[in-house]
Amino acid sequence: MKCLECGYESELSQRIITCPKCGGIMEIKVKIPSNFNFSMLRGRGVWRYRDAIPGNYNKTVSISEGGTPLVSSSFSSYLFYKFEGANPTGSFKDRGMTIAISSALSEGYKVVVAASTGNTAASAAAYAARGKMRIYLVLPSGKVALGKLAQSILYGATILEVNGSFDVAMSTVLRLYKELGVVYPLNSFNPWRLEGQKTIAYEIAEEIGVPDNVVVPVGNAGNVYAIWKGFVELMEAGVTSKIPKMIGVQAEGASPIARAIQKGESIPEFVDSPETVATAIRIGKPVNWKKAIKAIVESRGNALTVSDNEILEAQKKLARLEGLGAEPASAASLAGYQKAIEKGILGKDEKTVLILTGHALKDPDAMLKSDARRILVNPDHVDKIILGELDASS
Amino acid sequence: MKCLECGYESELSQRIITCPKCGGIMEIKVKIPSNFNFSMLRGRGVWRYRDAIPGNYNKTVSISEGGTPLVSSSFSSYLFYKFEGANPTGSFKDRGMTIAISSALSEGYKVVVAASTGNTAASAAAYAARGKMRIYLVLPSGKVALGKLAQSILYGATILEVNGSFDVAMSTVLRLYKELGVVYPLNSFNPWRLEGQKTIAYEIAEEIGVPDNVVVPVGNAGNVYAIWKGFVELMEAGVTSKIPKMIGVQAEGASPIARAIQKGESIPEFVDSPETVATAIRIGKPVNWKKAIKAIVESRGNALTVSDNEILEAQKKLARLEGLGAEPASAASLAGYQKAIEKGILGKDEKTVLILTGHALKDPDAMLKSDARRILVNPDHVDKIILGELDASS
Repeated sequence: MKCLECGYESELSQRIITCPKCGGIMEIKVKIPSNFNFSMLRGRGVWRYRDAIPGNYNKTVSISEGGTPLVSSSFSSYLFYKFEGANPTGSFKDRGMTIAISSALSEGYKVVVAASTGNTAASAAAYAARGKMRIYLVLPSGKVALGKLAQSILYGATILEVNGSFDVAMSTVLRLYKELGVVYPLNSFNPWRLEGQKTIAYEIAEEIGVPDNVVVPVGNAGNVYAIWKGFVELMEAGVTSKIPKMIGVQAEGASPIARAIQKGESIPEFVDSPETVATAIRIGKPVNWKKAIKAIVESRGNALTVSDNEILEAQKKLARLEGLGAEPASAASLAGYQKAIEKGILGKDEKTVLILTGHALKDPDAMLKSDARRILVNPDHVDKIILGELDASS
Repeated sequence: MKCLECGYESELSQRIITCPKCGGIMEIKVKIPSNFNFSMLRGRGVWRYRDAIPGNYNKTVSISEGGTPLVSSSFSSYLFYKFEGANPTGSFKDRGMTIAISSALSEGYKVVVAASTGNTAASAAAYAARGKMRIYLVLPSGKVALGKLAQSILYGATILEVNGSFDVAMSTVLRLYKELGVVYPLNSFNPWRLEGQKTIAYEIAEEIGVPDNVVVPVGNAGNVYAIWKGFVELMEAGVTSKIPKMIGVQAEGASPIARAIQKGESIPEFVDSPETVATAIRIGKPVNWKKAIKAIVESRGNALTVSDNEILEAQKKLARLEGLGAEPASAASLAGYQKAIEKGILGKDEKTVLILTGHALKDPDAMLKSDARRILVNPDHVDKIILGELDASS
């Protein structure tokens, strides 16, 4: 393990979450076995790739996370969607949570804590419940999508609502972790979570090989790095022979990383009051910014911003052309992909995977923003209405 | 194909949905190939079992439905949950919809119609969108869970809201289908849909063999029959050697089939104004009642009723003990299982699969009925609160 801030190096240890020396973000270096071979793997989902996941687990808490569908586009044979909404709590967060909660239990923790825009909360609450751990969630008051808040309640978490943005909640958890040794932090500054998330890359590589590009919505910025890390490990082991370009997409009102990449700067300018309809990526100070920039730059990728309007239009397009229901943050992938093609950053004939990070059902209010055709009718008149419309359109 | 009402028999035809002679419910008899063998199958999900699915499909519309996780219980090694919330639109309906929409397209239809309590609507809207078909949904006004209504809007369906219960919507669609040849009906009186749903049985048998019992929430009553049918086909082909007992569970306020089974009657007394918190099974006149009673009786199964309170308690138990988020109708499975054990209908040491038909996110309002621990706090005081609680409990 190595600190991205001060360069401190240590042996692999599940006790280490942030740098013991400076408190910085740690990287976990994994060398997968040289005889690693997809055809020899058993089971399905995150733990199928156990050989590539570091750490010792005397207890594992799994709810069959991962193993999500890779859906082909109906309008391009080069385009695929990794539908992470099919995870148990409806987002990719479950992949990291199975590792983090298993790790926390194996290390003897009894209490976990997480800041969240909602998806981390729902996932953490589910895995903590299954692992019989006590959980505290720190959420920005009034800024969590309805489905996600309801999940956290159903799973029985204690919810501490703070005034302010996600970034306030996040720094509260960081402080809690540093000051109270007794709580285990489930946010993505915890590098063990990313070891679960990297299995997105393993699954894509196993199913269709390595694509040319992977497009990822960027919020707290752990996922774009985790997926890149998975591809790097596979190439270093000789299982695959290339790395995809990592394309990060941020909402205009919360885009410190995309702006840094576009300006060629290595340190982003944080956003104090991030705003976007895509609540899952409404983050102004991404804790993993260094990892994200590393993944994007080293993969020769790129980053873009998309407007709220482009996001909602993309959400509708995903639903109405592809039949896929994804939350606004996920739809940012498609909006970014379209913009990247317009700008010549990507080619239409390059094999590209868009990561759809969470289910449309997470945020019913966003779905209701679509134009609706709702007609209140007398049941006896239904056939007249349908026949009338069919006549008019024929 | 054979009519369950008048006994009329016909060759297999995808044009046939209800009995051409009397309008009754048709059964599709399938003999799977004698060389059918799980180890030879390819792919994942519903179409993995193509050899067992009747019909000709020159177009298929798939969004990677099926292939859902079978999750082990944390408190019983004999208990498993089939988590159908992991389907693309969040319910088991997607399994039947891929077959029905593919069939409709293959037969040249351009317009589809469905009545729904919500899940069928969301699924039908998604598959119609992907298949580029026009869709009309007939919904009972004000009685559809928020997530499901929002999905139907996002997918761009035309929503016709009628006053009255689901049963009014259902009979409207039946009439539409019989009077207007031009629309293809997506409700479960369409036997082709059940051919997709039966793959739940194929997946269970492939993963853990044939269990002793399968517990299924019963609304319009197609699913309990479809799953039974899958197990029967496998046994008739010699792939497996037994049939599980099919246990149907209904909500007290909408329980015509359970009451008929309990009284040993072959014809149920329908319920005019069905009421239950479990909107997905709020159905008083199940269109597939004959099929359901057949499956339950021939499998030597049983049927139970559970109260709304038992359903909500089971939903909470699923979430807080198992980490599984299921909508109220799904939780009826667990409530029914518990009651069946209390009543001596099932043994604790019998291998049992509960079908969790839909995702908790489908119905955020139901989740919010759980007791919540929400505290509004100043971020600076979060650590004091947590330390205080930990002290108090240690």
